[in-house]
Amino acid sequence: MRIRFVTSNEHKAEEAAEILRSGGIEVEWVDLEYPEIQADSLEEVVSFSLEWVSGRVETPFFIEDAGMFIDALSGFPGPYSSYVFRTIGNQGIIRLMEGVSNRRAKFYSVIGLVAGRGMKAEVMGAGVPGRIAERPRGIGWGFDPIFIPEGGGGLTYAEMGRRKNEISHRRRALELLADRLGAKIVK
Amino acid sequence: MRIRFVTSNEHKAEEAAEILRSGGIEVEWVDLEYPEIQADSLEEVVSFSLEWVSGRVETPFFIEDAGMFIDALSGFPGPYSSYVFRTIGNQGIIRLMEGVSNRRAKFYSVIGLVAGRGMKAEVMGAGVPGRIAERPRGIGWGFDPIFIPEGGGGLTYAEMGRRKNEISHRRRALELLADRLGAKIVK
Repeated sequence: MRIRFVTSNEHKAEEAAEILRSGGIEVEWVDLEYPEIQADSLEEVVSFSLEWVSGRVETPFFIEDAGMFIDALSGFPGPYSSYVFRTIGNQGIIRLMEGVSNRRAKFYSVIGLVAGRGMKAEVMGAGVPGRIAERPRGIGWGFDPIFIPEGGGGLTYAEMGRRKNEISHRRRALELLADRLGAKIVK
Repeated sequence: MRIRFVTSNEHKAEEAAEILRSGGIEVEWVDLEYPEIQADSLEEVVSFSLEWVSGRVETPFFIEDAGMFIDALSGFPGPYSSYVFRTIGNQGIIRLMEGVSNRRAKFYSVIGLVAGRGMKAEVMGAGVPGRIAERPRGIGWGFDPIFIPEGGGGLTYAEMGRRKNEISHRRRALELLADRLGAKIVK
């Protein structure tokens, strides 16, 4: 089967295509920017965007948004992870977490799907628990150098290289999507 | 004359009403929440919201959005000031600015106006330059305890009490609005 992935982020498009391919799902990348609202939950952000994209892109299609939520900072940077990365960056997060003993955080990915013409929008999310590193380790995009996922042997996302894609929050959300579409992603 | 101010923030509504009254402009508060998009400039945020509000509220009406932009942090927290305040707060900003010698910042307010039925949306903004205090001083809303406006005698917004309204970024933006409406705000 074939599904459109609407995103202006080429890196995301490739990652999703690679993961879904193993489930026999072919991804067609639609390079379109859409408005994202300010909201405290990714589900709200995605729901609003889905409505905007509907009618502009042929079904079936999906969109995705992700963020890192830090417990000790009331969920910051959450839905604004990309802006926060571009401004205060990993160093800013490390500073905010100096001397903070509760380093729990999660990376969370939310997918919005319209499976067919006239069908209701569906929103699904999945996360990976972990903790914030004491300092950046490894080379990777965004907050990957400071996020240590549970079950990753103590490495940061950035240190895991391609193995990240086997356990990542986006992988888990895409598994939900595949399930919903009646497919199954294999390792 | 009479104009509607669309905001879900009662505090803002009162502040604007008080300032505009001296220009003979009567403000009618419309308590309505509208979507705000994620964007790096307040002008983009306000432009999008204006379009949403148009058609839902009778003209003439205006909306307002504001934020604090810190030079050394690439403009952070900017359009996300309210979220950042609710999560990492003043203490978070103080931490991010520890040992940073360039403490320049500005508070900026953007107003979006639709002056009459079928008229084009207009967007206008005004700011107050200042700097980030070494620690919070005074009791006030949001980032007021850590922002020291230029020309305020070294006091933070929070320490200025009602005098803040005489020089604030919102005051200056409302002066632009009054000008546009052919009125003049007096002290």
